[in-house]
Amino acid sequence: MKKNENLKSLSLNEIEYYKVHGRNISGQCPLPLFFNGSGIEVNVTGSELWIDLEVDCDFHEPWIYTALNNSFMSRQMLLPGSYSICLFRNMSPDSVKNMKFMRELQSMTEDDDCHILVKGFQTDGFFLPTSEKRYKIEFIGDSITSGEGTYGAKEDTDWLAMYMSSSRNYAVMTANALNADYHLFSQGGWGVYCGWDNDTRHNIPSRYEALCGLCGGEFNESLGVSKPYDFRSWVPDAIVVNLGTNDASAFEQPPFTIPETGEVCKQRKNPDGTYNREDLLKFEQAVIDFLKILRKHNESSHIVWAYGMLGYDLTLAITEAMNTYRNETGDSNVAFLQLPDSTPDNLGAHAHPGPASHERAAAVLTEYFKKKWEV
Amino acid sequence: MKKNENLKSLSLNEIEYYKVHGRNISGQCPLPLFFNGSGIEVNVTGSELWIDLEVDCDFHEPWIYTALNNSFMSRQMLLPGSYSICLFRNMSPDSVKNMKFMRELQSMTEDDDCHILVKGFQTDGFFLPTSEKRYKIEFIGDSITSGEGTYGAKEDTDWLAMYMSSSRNYAVMTANALNADYHLFSQGGWGVYCGWDNDTRHNIPSRYEALCGLCGGEFNESLGVSKPYDFRSWVPDAIVVNLGTNDASAFEQPPFTIPETGEVCKQRKNPDGTYNREDLLKFEQAVIDFLKILRKHNESSHIVWAYGMLGYDLTLAITEAMNTYRNETGDSNVAFLQLPDSTPDNLGAHAHPGPASHERAAAVLTEYFKKKWEV
Amino acid sequence: MKKNENLKSLSLNEIEYYKVHGRNISGQCPLPLFFNGSGIEVNVTGSELWIDLEVDCDFHEPWIYTALNNSFMSRQMLLPGSYSICLFRNMSPDSVKNMKFMRELQSMTEDDDCHILVKGFQTDGFFLPTSEKRYKIEFIGDSITSGEGTYGAKEDTDWLAMYMSSSRNYAVMTANALNADYHLFSQGGWGVYCGWDNDTRHNIPSRYEALCGLCGGEFNESLGVSKPYDFRSWVPDAIVVNLGTNDASAFEQPPFTIPETGEVCKQRKNPDGTYNREDLLKFEQAVIDFLKILRKHNESSHIVWAYGMLGYDLTLAITEAMNTYRNETGDSNVAFLQLPDSTPDNLGAHAHPGPASHERAAAVLTEYFKKKWEV
Amino acid sequence: MKKNENLKSLSLNEIEYYKVHGRNISGQCPLPLFFNGSGIEVNVTGSELWIDLEVDCDFHEPWIYTALNNSFMSRQMLLPGSYSICLFRNMSPDSVKNMKFMRELQSMTEDDDCHILVKGFQTDGFFLPTSEKRYKIEFIGDSITSGEGTYGAKEDTDWLAMYMSSSRNYAVMTANALNADYHLFSQGGWGVYCGWDNDTRHNIPSRYEALCGLCGGEFNESLGVSKPYDFRSWVPDAIVVNLGTNDASAFEQPPFTIPETGEVCKQRKNPDGTYNREDLLKFEQAVIDFLKILRKHNESSHIVWAYGMLGYDLTLAITEAMNTYRNETGDSNVAFLQLPDSTPDNLGAHAHPGPASHERAAAVLTEYFKKKWEV
Repeated sequence: MKKNENLKSLSLNEIEYYKVHGRNISGQCPLPLFFNGSGIEVNVTGSELWIDLEVDCDFHEPWIYTALNNSFMSRQMLLPGSYSICLFRNMSPDSVKNMKFMRELQSMTEDDDCHILVKGFQTDGFFLPTSEKRYKIEFIGDSITSGEGTYGAKEDTDWLAMYMSSSRNYAVMTANALNADYHLFSQGGWGVYCGWDNDTRHNIPSRYEALCGLCGGEFNESLGVSKPYDFRSWVPDAIVVNLGTNDASAFEQPPFTIPETGEVCKQRKNPDGTYNREDLLKFEQAVIDFLKILRKHNESSHIVWAYGMLGYDLTLAITEAMNTYRNETGDSNVAFLQLPDSTPDNLGAHAHPGPASHERAAAVLTEYFKKKWEV
Repeated sequence: MKKNENLKSLSLNEIEYYKVHGRNISGQCPLPLFFNGSGIEVNVTGSELWIDLEVDCDFHEPWIYTALNNSFMSRQMLLPGSYSICLFRNMSPDSVKNMKFMRELQSMTEDDDCHILVKGFQTDGFFLPTSEKRYKIEFIGDSITSGEGTYGAKEDTDWLAMYMSSSRNYAVMTANALNADYHLFSQGGWGVYCGWDNDTRHNIPSRYEALCGLCGGEFNESLGVSKPYDFRSWVPDAIVVNLGTNDASAFEQPPFTIPETGEVCKQRKNPDGTYNREDLLKFEQAVIDFLKILRKHNESSHIVWAYGMLGYDLTLAITEAMNTYRNETGDSNVAFLQLPDSTPDNLGAHAHPGPASHERAAAVLTEYFKKKWEV
Repeated sequence: MKKNENLKSLSLNEIEYYKVHGRNISGQCPLPLFFNGSGIEVNVTGSELWIDLEVDCDFHEPWIYTALNNSFMSRQMLLPGSYSICLFRNMSPDSVKNMKFMRELQSMTEDDDCHILVKGFQTDGFFLPTSEKRYKIEFIGDSITSGEGTYGAKEDTDWLAMYMSSSRNYAVMTANALNADYHLFSQGGWGVYCGWDNDTRHNIPSRYEALCGLCGGEFNESLGVSKPYDFRSWVPDAIVVNLGTNDASAFEQPPFTIPETGEVCKQRKNPDGTYNREDLLKFEQAVIDFLKILRKHNESSHIVWAYGMLGYDLTLAITEAMNTYRNETGDSNVAFLQLPDSTPDNLGAHAHPGPASHERAAAVLTEYFKKKWEV
Repeated sequence: MKKNENLKSLSLNEIEYYKVHGRNISGQCPLPLFFNGSGIEVNVTGSELWIDLEVDCDFHEPWIYTALNNSFMSRQMLLPGSYSICLFRNMSPDSVKNMKFMRELQSMTEDDDCHILVKGFQTDGFFLPTSEKRYKIEFIGDSITSGEGTYGAKEDTDWLAMYMSSSRNYAVMTANALNADYHLFSQGGWGVYCGWDNDTRHNIPSRYEALCGLCGGEFNESLGVSKPYDFRSWVPDAIVVNLGTNDASAFEQPPFTIPETGEVCKQRKNPDGTYNREDLLKFEQAVIDFLKILRKHNESSHIVWAYGMLGYDLTLAITEAMNTYRNETGDSNVAFLQLPDSTPDNLGAHAHPGPASHERAAAVLTEYFKKKWEV
């Protein structure tokens, strides 16, 4: 194979036009991709394009996918190192190609080393402006929004990076159908009040206000993950909160002892199998408080609590909390939307919603916003 | 055409085996069919079967459909008179045929003359026992449950009997998919608290406890429609309440003056377009009270409030009422389920859900009960 | 029910505007409906519409369906007699309603008494011009084109009128999707060379050139059924021939003896299970001859032999005949199209294609013509 | 990231159990993957698995995909070099994982350097026997069978490796649905008699009898590509030939001059737009001859000529040739099957069938074989 002698290496800060997907600090170079659905998009001429990366992880290797002209092209594991990946070769040099390089793996609270940095591109073409979409939607969630189970066989039960995605994800499907840009903010196993195992530290609201409160470690800290996120930098038209599934699970799980404090956490059930009212109200208070946080930072956004892809158990609790919030605050720009529960036919790996379940959920959300926005 | 000399006329009370669908008084002869989805079912041998009817109406002629071996066969308008309709001819005489003769038109509050009486059958065969289904479900609703718009072109806007059905009805689809018997209790334009036009007399709960509180007139009275319904005669495993759509509409409509009393009714909106809290609470109280009535008569039934086929506007109000009900009564055997809103693609006649919308709603309900009942 | 005093009875020959569907003699009054898919269509104002009929049959009672504004509304058995059927009541008088009254039952070679005559209408409105569709398609076939099995349960095996239709028929679905008028010419059990049981009298070509060569008897003769059909009266853009299924069956059936002549007919198989070449060539010659007849009367029509809804057995024989025809005549305006074979999932009554199979076939034909006609 | 100290490197000839997909010489090490759909499959325990490769190409870089437990996991470009790719990490070590590493790119007649060699694996587990499928099917075709256009946006028009696949390919979908092993033998632009551009050298039959007659160059020759393929090594139950699309195209294209000989090739059309009979017969003779070749090497295989995904133009010519073949040889174990033509809705990149079109074709083939084999 002959080397393309016309390739030029460009650091991101030498490139005028590119678009960053996902929460970030404007102008960072190299560019960290923190979340699933984070990525970089370019419009570029030329016959060939490479992306220059710096990657690390301890256990959970990040996966990425690429899309050429908005069509899925590749998906692969990234292992630690500094290297370049060829995104295309031998294309007609004059045509403008839209290329997206997108992270599949959620931000990993459990792997401080895990990161992807985009340093720049190599091409024989030049870069052109990218376009803004008509709408902006933020999706906040748990493993469902992390796309867990959207890849992998139904019998697969390991909890691994490769099973998560943004490429087969209801949130991304919804955004694409609505011609919307999107941010994802999600963590598998986490809830509004507590995680699936009753661990109250694993609540999304506590991490929401930092740039990427869901990852840590010295290196990630150096990227600013703990800094307050600048909510004015990207104002969503809508926020979709898909949380509650792990909070429901906590009622079924044994108590959890927080190692640092020895505090024992447990969402209790009554002898008749219903939820203990006191514990349910803890969950509801967390919903109320989170809605207030969301509203504080996103004054004009329509907030939709969208719930149900793994069971409807907390429907009445979530809506009770939403009603309390509405009555307390007078804020009526919130709605509850039920997403279709997964069935044995559309479950994916690890007992999580498979691609067909994500498609159903995306259809409900898409129809909802099309009606609301009269698209 | 040669006359079949072997046909015998049998009054219903001469027939040992037949099955009545829909609320009724046991053993009535002739048998009135009050509701859409009311009907009579027989297992019969012989080559030929006729049904003997007495029909009347003023404006709204009843429509019926027939199903042979659970497959839709015919649908037609019934005009006033005493006459017989041939259900099949020339079939293999020895095989057992399952034949259903079912009312398509809801009980008509607006037409006191409207009734269908089944007097008996003519056949050259004999009748055999019919079977009970595994489950029983009662569906309570408005025009959606009356199947309005399930027949007719999208541009049709008259409010007429022919557009309503039980044959293309989400309730019946759900019941069939679950192998369940069903009762329908519904009236177009009515709500829980008031009708679409703010008429507070048009609330379903006020009529629910009578046999068929939705029809009147001297003749219907003579059939016992105003007598208390014997709830012990048919104990549903589940009750699906699909109400709220007209209550939402009332907020958008002008005031209604009740002629008898001069009382002016109006569900108000606030200047910012939200619902007036005081009026919303009237609606919610009606939900709470109706749930108490339902529970009083159906101690063990799982109650599902299923809402959304024509918009999600009252989702939070309904769930607020349900939560209040649960907290007041400790009754946790109730659930809220969202049915998919109709889209321009699946609307039917008169801006009501078309057959495809009913199929979507039935799928959601069917999946819900399959999971709950582990079918 | 009050009588509508404004209804006027009009004989067909007093009505300026109406549209006849199916082969017919122009201007006949009363109007016979010979074929499934034959019917009468009106655009009419007024609140009410009745159709005046004269019906007879011996064994096979005709069935009809009605469509209001192109939407299926009713379906019922017609028994012998002179009577009127109400098509709608109480509609907004000023709007123009499109009403179709369509025959479901094929022309019945086996029932000489069977006929439907439309004598006129009763209405309080007036009639307006109907429109021509953009295309005209003739469909020629057997029980599949007669819609056998499109109604009825999968376990139903009687051969009866009620199971046939034009309302759930691939031919009509295709025509509607293409905005085309259609003629159907079909007879259950018949073939190109012989019927399913080897009866060589039951070949469609021998009857094709008469107005309705598929029905007989004194009364039908008086309607002109045996007169040559005037092919110039309705020039199809395309002819779809769906024949061969019964010809294939003949190879599997015992010999048939023609009663009048004692001639024994049998399409033979070789010991290895393949078709006897000599007999296959009889079939192929019949295909060739029929194509010549079709072309003689329809000089410009695109002829599509569409085959396969009940098995692909004669695909190569049909195409061999078509190739011979093309080579002999130089006529290249013919095509072979495979329709999807029915599967256990989409079979209807009497082991015939059910509605879902008809939908699949219609999709293939529709796509074919959309591409050809650049619709 | 810690290195897994337990990884062991094993050359293929040190591994007892693995399964080769696609034509090959038994026992080759390293193992060349010649065709799209060629690949290697292992059942393996352990937490981690790598594959050791040697790759080269000039212009057309090979792409591959992997499937874990029969579920698509990754897809990527392979660039020249000797390297290893991690297939999974950190899995539960004791469970048996089924891993497939499959070539996406067709064998490349136009790139002599192009090859993928599998040298071995690295794992901390051990290998277990793989299973044979119930059926074996060989698919022979052109760009459609090479999966061209199954990846990429509809507007993409470059002719590049990344757009081809076996992962979204009707042939593979069919085989999977039938629980069948498969061989693919295809080349974009080629036909039975000539290529899309009239180049008569580009006919599949001339290359079919060699191991991989579709690739050349010194290195590939050293792998045995020109050696006669051992047809006894893998006896297909069925052979699906999807050829004719490029032969039809040749009639529309300008003449082609073969550089070596100066011979001018051109499939001509008549002035009326029909195919020149003499040239059509050249095509038909090529079909006949190819059927003889196929039968010579595959005595018992059911041969299905499956055609139509990009137009039905040669349906009658192909069937004429098949009939001639049958009449000449008495071989009746051949069938013609029409695959659904692609529509604007389901076209993929480069005006080729997209994934939805491949799904439709696979459904037709699957239903065909299920009926034939009574699966």
